[in-house]
Amino acid sequence: MAERLFVLNGPNLDMLGRREPHVYGRVTLAEIEKRCRALAAELRFDLFFGQSNHEGQLVDWLHRAFDEDAAVLINPAGLSTRSVAVLDALKMIGQPVVEVHLTNVFARDPVYHSDLVTARAADGFVAGLGATGYELGMRGVRALRDGGPP
Amino acid sequence: MAERLFVLNGPNLDMLGRREPHVYGRVTLAEIEKRCRALAAELRFDLFFGQSNHEGQLVDWLHRAFDEDAAVLINPAGLSTRSVAVLDALKMIGQPVVEVHLTNVFARDPVYHSDLVTARAADGFVAGLGATGYELGMRGVRALRDGGPP
Amino acid sequence: MAERLFVLNGPNLDMLGRREPHVYGRVTLAEIEKRCRALAAELRFDLFFGQSNHEGQLVDWLHRAFDEDAAVLINPAGLSTRSVAVLDALKMIGQPVVEVHLTNVFARDPVYHSDLVTARAADGFVAGLGATGYELGMRGVRALRDGGPP
Amino acid sequence: MAERLFVLNGPNLDMLGRREPHVYGRVTLAEIEKRCRALAAELRFDLFFGQSNHEGQLVDWLHRAFDEDAAVLINPAGLSTRSVAVLDALKMIGQPVVEVHLTNVFARDPVYHSDLVTARAADGFVAGLGATGYELGMRGVRALRDGGPP
Amino acid sequence: MAERLFVLNGPNLDMLGRREPHVYGRVTLAEIEKRCRALAAELRFDLFFGQSNHEGQLVDWLHRAFDEDAAVLINPAGLSTRSVAVLDALKMIGQPVVEVHLTNVFARDPVYHSDLVTARAADGFVAGLGATGYELGMRGVRALRDGGPP
Amino acid sequence: MAERLFVLNGPNLDMLGRREPHVYGRVTLAEIEKRCRALAAELRFDLFFGQSNHEGQLVDWLHRAFDEDAAVLINPAGLSTRSVAVLDALKMIGQPVVEVHLTNVFARDPVYHSDLVTARAADGFVAGLGATGYELGMRGVRALRDGGPP
Amino acid sequence: MAERLFVLNGPNLDMLGRREPHVYGRVTLAEIEKRCRALAAELRFDLFFGQSNHEGQLVDWLHRAFDEDAAVLINPAGLSTRSVAVLDALKMIGQPVVEVHLTNVFARDPVYHSDLVTARAADGFVAGLGATGYELGMRGVRALRDGGPP
Amino acid sequence: MAERLFVLNGPNLDMLGRREPHVYGRVTLAEIEKRCRALAAELRFDLFFGQSNHEGQLVDWLHRAFDEDAAVLINPAGLSTRSVAVLDALKMIGQPVVEVHLTNVFARDPVYHSDLVTARAADGFVAGLGATGYELGMRGVRALRDGGPP
Amino acid sequence: MAERLFVLNGPNLDMLGRREPHVYGRVTLAEIEKRCRALAAELRFDLFFGQSNHEGQLVDWLHRAFDEDAAVLINPAGLSTRSVAVLDALKMIGQPVVEVHLTNVFARDPVYHSDLVTARAADGFVAGLGATGYELGMRGVRALRDGGPP
Amino acid sequence: MAERLFVLNGPNLDMLGRREPHVYGRVTLAEIEKRCRALAAELRFDLFFGQSNHEGQLVDWLHRAFDEDAAVLINPAGLSTRSVAVLDALKMIGQPVVEVHLTNVFARDPVYHSDLVTARAADGFVAGLGATGYELGMRGVRALRDGGPP
Amino acid sequence: MAERLFVLNGPNLDMLGRREPHVYGRVTLAEIEKRCRALAAELRFDLFFGQSNHEGQLVDWLHRAFDEDAAVLINPAGLSTRSVAVLDALKMIGQPVVEVHLTNVFARDPVYHSDLVTARAADGFVAGLGATGYELGMRGVRALRDGGPP
Amino acid sequence: MAERLFVLNGPNLDMLGRREPHVYGRVTLAEIEKRCRALAAELRFDLFFGQSNHEGQLVDWLHRAFDEDAAVLINPAGLSTRSVAVLDALKMIGQPVVEVHLTNVFARDPVYHSDLVTARAADGFVAGLGATGYELGMRGVRALRDGGPP
Repeated sequence: MAERLFVLNGPNLDMLGRREPHVYGRVTLAEIEKRCRALAAELRFDLFFGQSNHEGQLVDWLHRAFDEDAAVLINPAGLSTRSVAVLDALKMIGQPVVEVHLTNVFARDPVYHSDLVTARAADGFVAGLGATGYELGMRGVRALRDGGPP
Repeated sequence: MAERLFVLNGPNLDMLGRREPHVYGRVTLAEIEKRCRALAAELRFDLFFGQSNHEGQLVDWLHRAFDEDAAVLINPAGLSTRSVAVLDALKMIGQPVVEVHLTNVFARDPVYHSDLVTARAADGFVAGLGATGYELGMRGVRALRDGGPP
Repeated sequence: MAERLFVLNGPNLDMLGRREPHVYGRVTLAEIEKRCRALAAELRFDLFFGQSNHEGQLVDWLHRAFDEDAAVLINPAGLSTRSVAVLDALKMIGQPVVEVHLTNVFARDPVYHSDLVTARAADGFVAGLGATGYELGMRGVRALRDGGPP
Repeated sequence: MAERLFVLNGPNLDMLGRREPHVYGRVTLAEIEKRCRALAAELRFDLFFGQSNHEGQLVDWLHRAFDEDAAVLINPAGLSTRSVAVLDALKMIGQPVVEVHLTNVFARDPVYHSDLVTARAADGFVAGLGATGYELGMRGVRALRDGGPP
Repeated sequence: MAERLFVLNGPNLDMLGRREPHVYGRVTLAEIEKRCRALAAELRFDLFFGQSNHEGQLVDWLHRAFDEDAAVLINPAGLSTRSVAVLDALKMIGQPVVEVHLTNVFARDPVYHSDLVTARAADGFVAGLGATGYELGMRGVRALRDGGPP
Repeated sequence: MAERLFVLNGPNLDMLGRREPHVYGRVTLAEIEKRCRALAAELRFDLFFGQSNHEGQLVDWLHRAFDEDAAVLINPAGLSTRSVAVLDALKMIGQPVVEVHLTNVFARDPVYHSDLVTARAADGFVAGLGATGYELGMRGVRALRDGGPP
Repeated sequence: MAERLFVLNGPNLDMLGRREPHVYGRVTLAEIEKRCRALAAELRFDLFFGQSNHEGQLVDWLHRAFDEDAAVLINPAGLSTRSVAVLDALKMIGQPVVEVHLTNVFARDPVYHSDLVTARAADGFVAGLGATGYELGMRGVRALRDGGPP
Repeated sequence: MAERLFVLNGPNLDMLGRREPHVYGRVTLAEIEKRCRALAAELRFDLFFGQSNHEGQLVDWLHRAFDEDAAVLINPAGLSTRSVAVLDALKMIGQPVVEVHLTNVFARDPVYHSDLVTARAADGFVAGLGATGYELGMRGVRALRDGGPP
Repeated sequence: MAERLFVLNGPNLDMLGRREPHVYGRVTLAEIEKRCRALAAELRFDLFFGQSNHEGQLVDWLHRAFDEDAAVLINPAGLSTRSVAVLDALKMIGQPVVEVHLTNVFARDPVYHSDLVTARAADGFVAGLGATGYELGMRGVRALRDGGPP
Repeated sequence: MAERLFVLNGPNLDMLGRREPHVYGRVTLAEIEKRCRALAAELRFDLFFGQSNHEGQLVDWLHRAFDEDAAVLINPAGLSTRSVAVLDALKMIGQPVVEVHLTNVFARDPVYHSDLVTARAADGFVAGLGATGYELGMRGVRALRDGGPP
Repeated sequence: MAERLFVLNGPNLDMLGRREPHVYGRVTLAEIEKRCRALAAELRFDLFFGQSNHEGQLVDWLHRAFDEDAAVLINPAGLSTRSVAVLDALKMIGQPVVEVHLTNVFARDPVYHSDLVTARAADGFVAGLGATGYELGMRGVRALRDGGPP
Repeated sequence: MAERLFVLNGPNLDMLGRREPHVYGRVTLAEIEKRCRALAAELRFDLFFGQSNHEGQLVDWLHRAFDEDAAVLINPAGLSTRSVAVLDALKMIGQPVVEVHLTNVFARDPVYHSDLVTARAADGFVAGLGATGYELGMRGVRALRDGGPP
């Protein structure tokens, strides 16, 4: 039976494709969702895919993920260096958690990487690989669930 | 024709499997190399796989990678937060560069993540996914070469 | 006549009892509310009890507290070290304000105490005493309203 | 034809006039809106005027401003030193952005000015001039649209 | 049988009532002791109540508390942000420890809260509630001994 | 009768128009002065307009402004983050003080905004709006003199 | 009638004359006391002169000074950058307080001046003038009592 | 024969008496000069007394002091925490140097004491004693010239 | 003839053996003293062995050590990172000084090693070797007295 | 035809030869000027050589250099770590700029090198080579004008 | 049977005796090795003694020590505050590790002690006792192997 | 007779001409060596010219330079802000040491200049003048050997 996986997206990711395309590229979130759903079939994941500009909504979804014993792939976007609320919600999750970023935050302004708060509660971390990073993150979750690292 | 990919490993990674297994797991570097070589065939990469405890050796290999117009997957290990020499060598590379870490460095002592010097010159970054992270990193390199992010 | 008291709870507190029980214990927020309501009767408080994962909702409730000239007992949880919005809302309150934390934040990771932003606008502060801390905080509010410190 | 301008107000600004009047004065947000609408007529702006205590709502409105190719006048209030989400949303805006503060934040507690995150994405910045600052900010937007600095 | 509780007071607390009354109020330490003794009877505590301006004396008393398997309620006053010696002594205590402050230190000069050294070894923390805070702290100790948080 | 207003300009502003035009634009200080004088007539200000590369000269002019009970509009330029002497002189001024910057300093190198020393003594602050910012600043002074914020 | 003045000396000052004479000179504390007593007669001060290596003793003496409505001249020595207890005791004093140091602490290792805690509660501060500094400090106290600065 | 003494005053001190009198008092610089000249006669000093708002002028005077083998009493005012140029000029002086401040800078905003640059080159330091501090500083210079500390 | 050696122990060391035995082990201070005395006979030292929880007492003993021209072996415990008074007293000592710690402070919380104040005045430093560290420290003192490093 | 070169010297350099000769040596600025003029002939530079203790004068000269399309060799002395005004003036210069220091500032007190503000706008930097450094700096300017680095 | 002990020496230690003898003394590394070998016989250690200026070589030797289940005495010299690679290698060692320094690093420039990276993985630490420190370190290793601290 | 001079080059300098030519230019290290050798003849230096990517090799060469009583011109490249080992080796050198950088590090990312460790042991420092900088550095060494600064 397919295992549950929440793919959560933080503030401004609904604008992908149109938002600073020289930085974030031209792929839209709808396309990312489509690719994630395709891969979910292959990796046997039952996918919830959500995006919100509200920290509180992301926390709510993480509570639901906890209730459903789901794994989590999260791109916290602007909340990555700020949100203790998301950090605390991630800490509850009993299944693998992978944080993903479209860009390589370490090559950008420190505001995007100087205190990666939410990443403390992740198992894996993928950055800079664009939409492909979501797919790699899903593969990472699969490996972790199947008895992965360490 | 296969494209050239250098998979480089920094200090102490030759001891994987025996080194702090509660942190790094039981997989050896030989096993990681084997998995990388298997995937390289699939992804059409001509692989060089090296490990050294010497910063200078890693720099030399990066120069060779530059000469051969290779992409680079690098786990700088203890040099990640320290080596400007590796940073400078990575900056030369014209092909995709992905930095990989076995553990999620953000969940560890700040000495392992408080100033990720070499990551500034990477395109992608994968951490916390153990040996699988090497495979995901290779897939990331492939996506970047095939016209990936942004 | 009973005086108005708002007991407000921040992100993730709805998950008490199930959330990291080795850290936060097994008491649920419903039980805390029950104990608060019992004590409110004794201390002559007319209680509003709310929880939200949304910073904005907490700010809205604080505005209502201001409108009703209520005192406030608040556990800002993950917003404690982050939210200037909650700080500003608390500054408006004309009646006593007590901030309460279930755990002793000073014995935890600095992310939980290195800059206690909201506490600047509190009169009292109680931490580490679990659900009992809510009761003690209510007694503190009562003492402050009845002509307390300094 | 009038150009579109979003005037956005962050947390607690709905309480203007009643909130710490010794700091913020007695003018209400309704009065500010009225003055902005009057000036909009003169400056040929088609005005949207909104206030929210929710960071996510402000981000949503900024997305709408982007969709409508609008300019933005924003008082992020307590989010000014905190919100990368608002920063990222502002970065999308193709028209002039002016950040406005009622008080001179530099003469206040560092919590109000030590890291002005959102201002990085603004073109102009006006502080300390109360409700008049909104009018000046609108004039600034007009000047910028008409071929202003540099 | 009554359990042992040490209520310890650090430097300058002997001057309460006369010391900066606009900050600390008019209640004297003798009155606080009296209120603590009254409550001790109710809560079944065998009370030792001491005050000293000498860090060494406080350490000595903590050693005695350790010898007598006592719980501790301590107001370290000026030593709160400074004394590793008191921190180390508190770490020895096997029974509940609650730190209490008369004022809300977070609303004061950083010299009073920027590094709360001794609080790291406490179970509970109460601040800003004046003499009432001692009583609440005692109730906290009682709750902790009776099987309290977490 | 017209009220007195000093418009003071710090180091390098005499070179406006020719100095880094990609940063500061093509408007000269003479043109700014002209625009200020035109607006002064409208706003009933008796204008003194000066520029100096000498901190001491600016201090001298501020003393004169004090003697003449004048308001002040100042662009301290390179002295903004450095000069306690100008800060102290501004503190003397009994009439409104507005600090103006041509560029949005918050979007530039930290050397231009990491410690805005002189702004502590200002009432208003305008940045990033080029020459128009001077006009807006003058309007701000007018509003402040006529009974403005808070 | 003579006014009361406490001249208090902190740790290691009993060893003056023999302690690092290349730094502190050859004058003994007995000689300093003698010079202070001589000057006290001239300045109409009733002198208490004490030295202790115990922070607690200095606090006790400051309480006595408070009780006797005395002025204070204090050389906190090694406690200058450390003792919040002495700071708090000095804050109580209703009469002038002058802090004196034998050496110019600003020309020495930062451990001697990087956070002058006790000086925050002083009215005057004299350093680097050796034993003469005590005499100057006494003259300063006299001037302050007779209606001095500001 | 009288020895040469330069009494130098930095920015804004020409406004003493009128400048923030609640901070600096009502004494004018002319009165301070008069008191210094009176004391100079007693202490056998040939006095130069100067004030400038220009750092360069103060440096020039210090060069003259060097040429005349003079001692120096300097109130650098706003340059105290800023001027390496004055620091370097003071380092040349072969005779005693005393720095004087009218107010106790340690009790004020850190901008007035967080890095006392010029004081590193002083022998003595007097603060918080108003105009009397100049007289005490002169007595300090006299003591230092007559074979004083250490 | 035997040379004089003071072995001094700071706060909480009287509780060794019972104090946090998982950190400090089961050896008591009496046993350490016994081992030190046995070795003193071998190394020709006339031993004073003292422990105090009072910084002032340690300073007094160091003055006595100075008077007796003694060498010093000191475990400042909680005063290591705090006490300028002990630092200043150690600076007086003309004979070798060795600081000893039972645990390896560098592997512990920064509060135990982030600013080793007293160690600046030591010749040697031994940590992490428990009671044996005292013996090694004594051997170090002997080597230093007999013409040792550098 | 000779190209224009401004050699500018900051505060205290007029005292070279007499100023702290153990640090700066015995060469006077007149001798340095003479050596510069001799070399200027060889390198085909039309030399302006100036020194001032006034930051404003240096800025004025830099404006003149800009007007004359001159290259600049500047020893900002005490202004190196302080002056944003000089930084801004240097940024205007269209020809090569070399900053020169007599001493190796990196081997000195951090006040001389911890934030080299003006060097950000230089092309070349020479330190520690005394008067010869001026000559080398001039050769550097020549190389840069003739098509030098990178 | 003798137990294996690696005595490893980092960069520049091959130059002992000739290298800055006023700092490091006149003893050569050959003499230190001789003394270590003599003591090894007494303490039943089978000694490997190595020195390298290459971080990588030290890591290689530590791997060998791990393979041989050896204890380690290491003087990382210039790598002490820099090398995460050596830290990671030391963490693998299952036997006692003691770090030794010839000088008391705490009395030297912060570059020698401000972040003792490798010491985090040591059991013991000896500094300032020159060549004798190696002998004491070896005794420490012996004590630790024989059931020592804590 | 020619004096010995070591010209040493750190990591990645073997790639000059091909490495980030927009930053480092097109000149190769072979060309730099050729220019250095040509100038060495003129300046009477017996040249050793070496490059290595290994810190240890650079240290070895510096030891050889010490043995041959040679002067040193070193471009530590990526080791400049990192290597205490090179710093320590440079400190041994009895002849002049000049550090050279191809680029003006102060105009680049702080990773290239925020802590210039090795420069502390240099006499001279030249940056930003490309290959010409090597020649100027050699002239600097010559001047220092012939009795130069200070």
